[in-house]
Amino acid sequence: MTTPADTLARIGGPLREELFHFLRIPSVSARSEHRSDVRRAAAWVSDHLRNTGFSTQMVETPGHPIVLGEWREAGPEAPTLLIYGHYDVQPAEPLELWTSPPFEPEIRDGRLYARGATDDKGQLYLHLKALEILMGSRGGLPVNVVVVAEGEEEVGSPNLLPFLRDHQDRLACDAVIISDSQMFAPGVPSLLSSLRGLAYVEIHVQGARSDLHSGAYGGAVPNAATVLARLLASLHDADGRVAIPGFYDRVVEWDSEARAAIDGLPFDEEGFRHETGAPGLQGEAGYRTLERLWIRPTCEVNGLLSGYTGEGAKTVLPARAMAKVSFRLVPDQDPDRISALLRSHLQAVAPPEVKVEVRELHHGRPWRGSPQGPFFEAARRALARSFGQEPVLTGEGGSIPIVSDFEEVLGAPVLLLGFGLPGSNLHAPDEWFPDAHLEKGIETLLHLYGELDG
Amino acid sequence: MTTPADTLARIGGPLREELFHFLRIPSVSARSEHRSDVRRAAAWVSDHLRNTGFSTQMVETPGHPIVLGEWREAGPEAPTLLIYGHYDVQPAEPLELWTSPPFEPEIRDGRLYARGATDDKGQLYLHLKALEILMGSRGGLPVNVVVVAEGEEEVGSPNLLPFLRDHQDRLACDAVIISDSQMFAPGVPSLLSSLRGLAYVEIHVQGARSDLHSGAYGGAVPNAATVLARLLASLHDADGRVAIPGFYDRVVEWDSEARAAIDGLPFDEEGFRHETGAPGLQGEAGYRTLERLWIRPTCEVNGLLSGYTGEGAKTVLPARAMAKVSFRLVPDQDPDRISALLRSHLQAVAPPEVKVEVRELHHGRPWRGSPQGPFFEAARRALARSFGQEPVLTGEGGSIPIVSDFEEVLGAPVLLLGFGLPGSNLHAPDEWFPDAHLEKGIETLLHLYGELDG
Repeated sequence: MTTPADTLARIGGPLREELFHFLRIPSVSARSEHRSDVRRAAAWVSDHLRNTGFSTQMVETPGHPIVLGEWREAGPEAPTLLIYGHYDVQPAEPLELWTSPPFEPEIRDGRLYARGATDDKGQLYLHLKALEILMGSRGGLPVNVVVVAEGEEEVGSPNLLPFLRDHQDRLACDAVIISDSQMFAPGVPSLLSSLRGLAYVEIHVQGARSDLHSGAYGGAVPNAATVLARLLASLHDADGRVAIPGFYDRVVEWDSEARAAIDGLPFDEEGFRHETGAPGLQGEAGYRTLERLWIRPTCEVNGLLSGYTGEGAKTVLPARAMAKVSFRLVPDQDPDRISALLRSHLQAVAPPEVKVEVRELHHGRPWRGSPQGPFFEAARRALARSFGQEPVLTGEGGSIPIVSDFEEVLGAPVLLLGFGLPGSNLHAPDEWFPDAHLEKGIETLLHLYGELDG
Repeated sequence: MTTPADTLARIGGPLREELFHFLRIPSVSARSEHRSDVRRAAAWVSDHLRNTGFSTQMVETPGHPIVLGEWREAGPEAPTLLIYGHYDVQPAEPLELWTSPPFEPEIRDGRLYARGATDDKGQLYLHLKALEILMGSRGGLPVNVVVVAEGEEEVGSPNLLPFLRDHQDRLACDAVIISDSQMFAPGVPSLLSSLRGLAYVEIHVQGARSDLHSGAYGGAVPNAATVLARLLASLHDADGRVAIPGFYDRVVEWDSEARAAIDGLPFDEEGFRHETGAPGLQGEAGYRTLERLWIRPTCEVNGLLSGYTGEGAKTVLPARAMAKVSFRLVPDQDPDRISALLRSHLQAVAPPEVKVEVRELHHGRPWRGSPQGPFFEAARRALARSFGQEPVLTGEGGSIPIVSDFEEVLGAPVLLLGFGLPGSNLHAPDEWFPDAHLEKGIETLLHLYGELDG
């Protein structure tokens, strides 16, 4: 009899070839010119599930489609597991900073480089492949499985919550499993117990009607770029704390036990700094690096554009200036409230000589899970078996805004089981996934289903 | 006998056609892709002078050439007038904000629209045409005339001062006349008595080696865009004064008489604000608008670029951020010293967790002239005759950095005789020149030579 492990051992080469095919599709959800590529990636997921024996449906939305795959032959008495992933990716720009092109996957030094390698096509693929192997070698699964793969995670999942609400009964499940996160360190398997939320806005400042000569008008007419810089500078105080009144009102401080657990993790701060290449680390006074990343909220400028940015010295007084600004949030901050606080703050500090506009781009709530229950235990044991070491509980600075939506709408616990590694350049040039984790990840998932089979 | 005035009256149509030909050449000196266009514009000026009867020379420089035209047949006893102008123009971007394309001149509602219409091809053309008309109708000029037309004014004239020094004897003259400025208001002829200088730099901030995920790293790694905004905000205090220590040390305060003369000008502040389209005017506390524009130094952000600026919400923590920043200077501020003060200030306030670099783009000294002497008197009378009203003395917020170079190297007074109008969108989309000032300008210059003929 062929075991799932035998199958896995046999297919290393074809495994990579298949994943490369998926990664080559430039499914950039933020860019309208990639609309048909995003749809191709959806079809790729759907085809794979159908070939595995799942019934599939492409659920249309006002944006990109949601792929729904179902296998319910474990019967009504068996538990149901919902697997969520996303087949869209971040824009790949700036392209010139990639060592190999973002949509031409390449393995170098044990790393599989491609946009989406870790976030999230590579990790979604681990699940698809584990399901295929189990179905192929055992003819079925120990639990009912529903797969939800969306194409709008990188633009804030605007259509996922409506989809969950519309299909609440059909999606009923006992646990949700998501692999869109990272391990704490190489060789240290991890289960995520908290995520930061997100409020992402654009701030637009307008002074004059159009750009003016900075000599003829400078000194007497408001400069949109100067005003924007001053507004942005007002968002933090000298201690690195966010200076928007009310920003920390609903922040739940972690107890000393939880903070001690974080402090106890084997974190190499100098290694972390070195990996980023920054001359030094910087953040909110009174907190250590992992706390700043996991349990404290932030305010980041994500982009700036104003005036003349080309070659040479153009003496222009910019009429318009734009900043992309995002806040990472922790329980119980609410993204809508944070963006309302930002508006009030800007209204209070902006000079009346300019117009200031705040445009909402996307919002996601923060999340903190409770690490217990049969699915959590099964995942813990599966990770320990695969990696030969008990998993640690970690936090994550990034956002998977839909995690709390799943918990709330479906009433099921969410399990965050990530196989990426720190420093894998998510949302940046040269994104990579540890090549060996292709087999390790699938193996862990096979163990997980094994644990559930009883 | 045909008088110069008869000739001028006859050639209105061909005059515009000829100028259009000049304006159609996209002689953008800041952009390397326009190198051959800049050279074409130089050849156009040179050809025109040669056809007028001048001996001409195309003087090569490490950048764009300087056109030198000479007519010295008035004899060694007659005075020599040096005319300076520039045939290069500012970049035309953003192109989409032009009503008609920048290099396809068009007259609408009495305004001649084109990049360079006022700054400075249109005004240089007035001189070329006046010389042509005089030579054609009278067979000569009452004074010796040297024309210096450069192609690097908009990039800081890096090769003009060396040229002046190298040809100091050959360029010896009794006065320099430059038409690269504006009249105070429609119908109000003006002579310029002060210009602001310029120090233009780029500030580069670098935090991490490359862009990072703002969730995974935000809060603990320095954000180049946030730091840049804070640096820029530190350049002004709450009263709109430049907050760089030492910035005002060498500023010569104008006496109350000179300030009263400025206050006495018929300036329509609300009309000025309305023309800019800004909700309000803004500047250094304690000074009125014309003072802020003419006699007070400034610091302006000319451009900002960092992180992700495309469509949608990319959660990136920018590694790099760039600002173009320029200072308008007044006597006796020195551009080199100002940029050294900026460096010291940034060094003092920048956090050690980032790298900050200041790159010099260009420098020009401020200037204040003394409104007297035979050439000044001739210009005053010529303007009064053409416009039916005595000219006013004005200041100018913009820079013509080479004015003080001319005075210093050649020891001759500089006469700034401008025919542009306020609001003519210099360095901005929809630059225009008042169509009627084509004839008015040439007529004034014909009067000027008439005044000198005695």
